[in-house]
Amino acid sequence: MQHMKINVGLLGCGTVGSGVAQVMLEQADHLEKRSGIRLELKKVLVRDAAKARTIPSSLMTTRPEDIIDNPDIQIVVELIGGLDPAGEWILHSLKNGKRVVTANKYLLAHRGSDIFAAAAANRSCVCFEASCGGAIPIVLALTRGLLANEIKSVVGILNGTCNYILTQMMQNGKPYSTALAEAQQAGFAEADPYMDVSGLDSGHKLAVLASLAFGADIRPAHIDIQGIAALQDVDLRYARELGYVCKLLAIAQQQATGVSLRVHPALLPVSHPLASVNGSYNAVSVDGSVAGRTVYFGQGAGAMPTASAVLADILEAAMNATVPFFASHPLLNHRQPVAIIPPTEVHTRHYLRITALDKPGTIHDITGVLGRHHISISAMTQHEARAGAYVPLVITTHEAMGGGVTSALAELSQLSCVSGEPAHLRIWDDYE
Amino acid sequence: MQHMKINVGLLGCGTVGSGVAQVMLEQADHLEKRSGIRLELKKVLVRDAAKARTIPSSLMTTRPEDIIDNPDIQIVVELIGGLDPAGEWILHSLKNGKRVVTANKYLLAHRGSDIFAAAAANRSCVCFEASCGGAIPIVLALTRGLLANEIKSVVGILNGTCNYILTQMMQNGKPYSTALAEAQQAGFAEADPYMDVSGLDSGHKLAVLASLAFGADIRPAHIDIQGIAALQDVDLRYARELGYVCKLLAIAQQQATGVSLRVHPALLPVSHPLASVNGSYNAVSVDGSVAGRTVYFGQGAGAMPTASAVLADILEAAMNATVPFFASHPLLNHRQPVAIIPPTEVHTRHYLRITALDKPGTIHDITGVLGRHHISISAMTQHEARAGAYVPLVITTHEAMGGGVTSALAELSQLSCVSGEPAHLRIWDDYE
Repeated sequence: MQHMKINVGLLGCGTVGSGVAQVMLEQADHLEKRSGIRLELKKVLVRDAAKARTIPSSLMTTRPEDIIDNPDIQIVVELIGGLDPAGEWILHSLKNGKRVVTANKYLLAHRGSDIFAAAAANRSCVCFEASCGGAIPIVLALTRGLLANEIKSVVGILNGTCNYILTQMMQNGKPYSTALAEAQQAGFAEADPYMDVSGLDSGHKLAVLASLAFGADIRPAHIDIQGIAALQDVDLRYARELGYVCKLLAIAQQQATGVSLRVHPALLPVSHPLASVNGSYNAVSVDGSVAGRTVYFGQGAGAMPTASAVLADILEAAMNATVPFFASHPLLNHRQPVAIIPPTEVHTRHYLRITALDKPGTIHDITGVLGRHHISISAMTQHEARAGAYVPLVITTHEAMGGGVTSALAELSQLSCVSGEPAHLRIWDDYE
Repeated sequence: MQHMKINVGLLGCGTVGSGVAQVMLEQADHLEKRSGIRLELKKVLVRDAAKARTIPSSLMTTRPEDIIDNPDIQIVVELIGGLDPAGEWILHSLKNGKRVVTANKYLLAHRGSDIFAAAAANRSCVCFEASCGGAIPIVLALTRGLLANEIKSVVGILNGTCNYILTQMMQNGKPYSTALAEAQQAGFAEADPYMDVSGLDSGHKLAVLASLAFGADIRPAHIDIQGIAALQDVDLRYARELGYVCKLLAIAQQQATGVSLRVHPALLPVSHPLASVNGSYNAVSVDGSVAGRTVYFGQGAGAMPTASAVLADILEAAMNATVPFFASHPLLNHRQPVAIIPPTEVHTRHYLRITALDKPGTIHDITGVLGRHHISISAMTQHEARAGAYVPLVITTHEAMGGGVTSALAELSQLSCVSGEPAHLRIWDDYE
């Protein structure tokens, strides 16, 4: 049988690009044996052609037009990240009739609908499995495997850097700054970890996944995003005592009045399927109307796990398996408007740690504030004072409205029996 | 935008068929909104047209030709199970140019290659996500999401009935017969549970998944299959003391000299990702050369979870997303021969429980037999005698060859200091 030959151009040759190039160059026979497709790497766009690489210099170029205007190339793989020029080059490639593969969650979160519309208009496709969850085929699951389901929720651990840091904090009791420094030394966090620890990276991925889940055009601005930099190890210690672990969760949840979209550190019961996802692993739990709950787990970052997803997309695009329906797929194009529930109206359980004066009437005052804001206490522990007259009071609540909790926290910090701002974490225990 | 209209015929209306029909009839608008495809249920083949059902009687027929020869029907969904007539009707439908969806693992395990070749010859496709793992999109992961990977292993909990029974035995200390009876009462086991508890159902699913993983024509006869009916609760109790749980695992493992294929009860460390898969849930762990380990988890059986997979396949077939490459996909067609490693040559760790006479020289005799068969002891516990002169001696071994262990067990049962046949379980602790 004659195998199909497809020529590929790579825009970008960083960590993931190098991994993709390496597999394409070293394992072309193997890829062909499994897929029936002969991939040939034609050109790789690099910033600095003089930099030493394992890729033959004949393949390297510093001119994007050698790829996006190259009539010999059928598939353009964008791995440079950011809005532009990545976005411009993708649109240009689509206009030139090329199929596009991208791992760019930042771009898709901000301009996904425009890019998908351009692909539809040009009878092409954009494959983006590698944009979320590394090696996990979660885009495939949402757009194909679970297509018959109304999606009730998508809950993910989508950032390996944060999960590595939180695992170190939970398991070894390290403070945030130490865990971050060690993650940087181990290569699990970048020199500038802002995009990761701020929760923005998880927010971009959630925008991509929630758009697919609900067939809606969901942008980062719709998402309530809180990172992990303000976490205190004392709260993780108390959480562990209460039977919880802390994870940075990205949550998209269908509720009666709309969808709730948020990224924040959350306490999960240790028995929750996402609670045992440790280190740099990612996981996504999807609750569907027909399938029930399915959970997907794998390496969330790194050259090879992400290359696995990029290569799957290259083969998918090569097989022309996506083009026939890309324009008509309502989860990709023709997305519907959706109501976003503001954070103040989201119901969830809460963890509060209040530094309280150890005197008669304190608990009465504190519980009075909570009661006025319709916050019902699920459990309360007064820990022994370490020094002085102030003691940590740890409270978990039943489900309470976000706005009420914010108001209560502000009032609590004004009480004379309370020192400083209470610590606050949300609890996620949807699992039955 | 004009949506595509596709007419569907169902062969069979049991548990899964009723679920599929219900969703198609009640949620057609919703399916269209998500997929851009209008599905219409045209005919449902039933054995007894007089039986009361929620499906309109105008849709029901007792004549298969009303579906497989019906020029108005584009997609035939086979949900009757077994070899024939299911296989004949599928081949007939393919010859008539229809696309086929099936959940029939029994048929695909025994005749998958013939059926896929017929689909290729007729420029059609057979979609079979629902044949393995219920709602879990594992066929999609193996044929698409992980296509760039050489698969090192596929390890699954593929039978919800067995997993429910084993969970009851492990967590509540119930003997096998009690756990089975309760599973039958709760509707998790059939009146005749033979296909499930014998391991055959898991074996059929493993044949389907391993064929995809290795691009080879793997049949049930290639698989070493052992069920759960002979398990003793005392061994599960000792296993728990040692930090293991017991699961019925289906294992396909690439090794230096070929692939090892087996279904058997196995002891997993409690920290293994598959160890916490309880009740009627299924899970599959796939180790790939590029992606590393990915794990998939979801409801393994039941009307709705399986209907989710069937409906995804109907939509996939309707989008014509599979036909373009079905004939050329080497994991589906053009499968390569593969060497099967016989059970005697498989290396794994073992658990042995020997009922031994409590006298000097006993341990010396037993360890002598093990040593002669190159079986190295990892841990050994002599439990206190309950009554009489015999004590249970529990041994876990380092990796040892299957044939050596079989010979050693035969010799041990002949020792004068050993009473009866030793109990034997294999340990699975590949997880780093």
